[in-house]
Amino acid sequence: MAPQRSIWCEEGEVFIVDQTRLPGELKILHIQTVGEMFEAIQSLRIRGAPAIGIAAAFGVWIAVKHAGEFDSIPTRQLVENACKYLETSRPTAVNLFWALDRVRDVVKALGPGATKAQVKQRLLEEAQLMIDEDNAVCRAIGLAGADLIPDGGTILTHCNTGGLATAQYGTALACVYMAVHEKGKSVRVLADETRPLLQGARLTTWELQQAGIPVTLICDSMAGWLMKQGKVDLVIVGADRVTRHGDFANKIGTYSVARLARCHSVPFYVAVPFSSIDTALTSGDQIPIEERRPDEVTSVLGTRIAPEGVDVYNPAFDVTPAEFVDGFITEKGIFRTPYDFAAA
Amino acid sequence: MAPQRSIWCEEGEVFIVDQTRLPGELKILHIQTVGEMFEAIQSLRIRGAPAIGIAAAFGVWIAVKHAGEFDSIPTRQLVENACKYLETSRPTAVNLFWALDRVRDVVKALGPGATKAQVKQRLLEEAQLMIDEDNAVCRAIGLAGADLIPDGGTILTHCNTGGLATAQYGTALACVYMAVHEKGKSVRVLADETRPLLQGARLTTWELQQAGIPVTLICDSMAGWLMKQGKVDLVIVGADRVTRHGDFANKIGTYSVARLARCHSVPFYVAVPFSSIDTALTSGDQIPIEERRPDEVTSVLGTRIAPEGVDVYNPAFDVTPAEFVDGFITEKGIFRTPYDFAAA
Repeated sequence: MAPQRSIWCEEGEVFIVDQTRLPGELKILHIQTVGEMFEAIQSLRIRGAPAIGIAAAFGVWIAVKHAGEFDSIPTRQLVENACKYLETSRPTAVNLFWALDRVRDVVKALGPGATKAQVKQRLLEEAQLMIDEDNAVCRAIGLAGADLIPDGGTILTHCNTGGLATAQYGTALACVYMAVHEKGKSVRVLADETRPLLQGARLTTWELQQAGIPVTLICDSMAGWLMKQGKVDLVIVGADRVTRHGDFANKIGTYSVARLARCHSVPFYVAVPFSSIDTALTSGDQIPIEERRPDEVTSVLGTRIAPEGVDVYNPAFDVTPAEFVDGFITEKGIFRTPYDFAAA
Repeated sequence: MAPQRSIWCEEGEVFIVDQTRLPGELKILHIQTVGEMFEAIQSLRIRGAPAIGIAAAFGVWIAVKHAGEFDSIPTRQLVENACKYLETSRPTAVNLFWALDRVRDVVKALGPGATKAQVKQRLLEEAQLMIDEDNAVCRAIGLAGADLIPDGGTILTHCNTGGLATAQYGTALACVYMAVHEKGKSVRVLADETRPLLQGARLTTWELQQAGIPVTLICDSMAGWLMKQGKVDLVIVGADRVTRHGDFANKIGTYSVARLARCHSVPFYVAVPFSSIDTALTSGDQIPIEERRPDEVTSVLGTRIAPEGVDVYNPAFDVTPAEFVDGFITEKGIFRTPYDFAAA
């Protein structure tokens, strides 16, 4: 069964799955204003690097589409205002900037004489094209990664890098989908629950269940112990941002998984589209780490788990040095050390 | 301020803090039957190796005390039945067996002619003595460990090995209490939340707050990243069971913390009373690992976090090989590799 789409446009209206409601409820949100799209990105209703980029592009289109009452503002200014606004919704996500720069370029290419209707039409086409491209990229990543997965193998993953994190097919999980659906392999996934926001428990398990792929949920702290027992054949994670030489930022906890995988000689791979690679960065130290609200740690889905007033450290990401990565699985194939993505 | 007691006897009645209600509520339970004590141990209302042993001893006393209506059963048989019953409440906890064997010995030493009243009196004295001894042992562990803690240092710990895990002072946290209260050092504690049951988030933070010691709560997956940033000076954990040569079982996640500490050259210590050392075991492979219910992972304090029907792996403990331990902090001082506790 094809994975659930995260975002799509039907008859001129944009819809997303509200991922904060999964797995309890499959709630579809109809996004009608750029403010709603901003909130959806910031509150992780839509999440995952590629999906965020697509959401931002649709957000700009929606801003222009609904700006009828501000006709005195030039359309190009409207576009720029929407881009600037959306850039602040998730400042660590390089795909957000990549998608918005692409939107700016498209509008620029139309020239100053373009009518508002032309700009609007072009923005919609570009956002839709980003979905189509994302599907092609994810399927290519999945096919490359599928070859790494042994038949009957067990893959550990962290966070959600499945269909819900992209338009439909995912990055790390695309490798699993392609191994199972295209190559006919038998695969089990060990899903780290991924505290604090539990994307693994809520989303990875849900979408694998939907796709009929066996999945075992574990707490993050159990991954090392499973490796020690020889129960993990391969780790595949996603990445929010990869530097030129292969350092990468991903969901907090990824760094520990990478170190533990190396300790146990378990191969550790990162599945990413090239759009998540920022060749302007030469070191992981240059990646800003978003610190998020303490209540993400002190509460779990609204249930308080810690005393009032306790101090909390809550980095959204960590950075794993390239030396702990056995390879990057991309739409252009698998890259191995020494990494230089500027030359790729 | 002295740490909160976990179990005590006042005017012939036994009370425990219901640790499943912390930190939201400080609920004191009056334990009136051996069945209630069994349930309290099994449901982790009282937990931590030393506290479980004391609870079991009081449980046997309560069984005899309330057995008036079964006078036809010989008292020694009553004691044996209660011991056998309580042994099944937490089969991984060596202190449980140690405490119950001690109870058996005490009754045996009274001789076959002892009256029921004499047995009852002796059982109560022994349970109370176990509290006094535990306090002495924990304070000695704490004083030994306090010397390892640098003034102004940051200590990472996993699970709850504080006062609530023993009668009052704790093991790993006793080192912190003694460093602060007896040696006048300034110490910050990083508390792993410790999924699935969140003893770190619920209990460690709570008791450190009560004692006025700075504590920062983190998710388990953040510990490695903090070590990478040089923000952890020392790790101290407890142990449920230590083998003759220093392999040890402790709360799931401890193994990963130990491996990550070694990766980052952070000293890793285990604080344990000698009663948690089982010299009959020569290897960690001999320690049985209790697997607990899936809903501990799929729910957090009653809130469902994963889809229905998902497969779960939920080991309560993991085993850390001795090679990753820089030292054991005991009431007899600090032991360093090569470990041979049979010779100690």
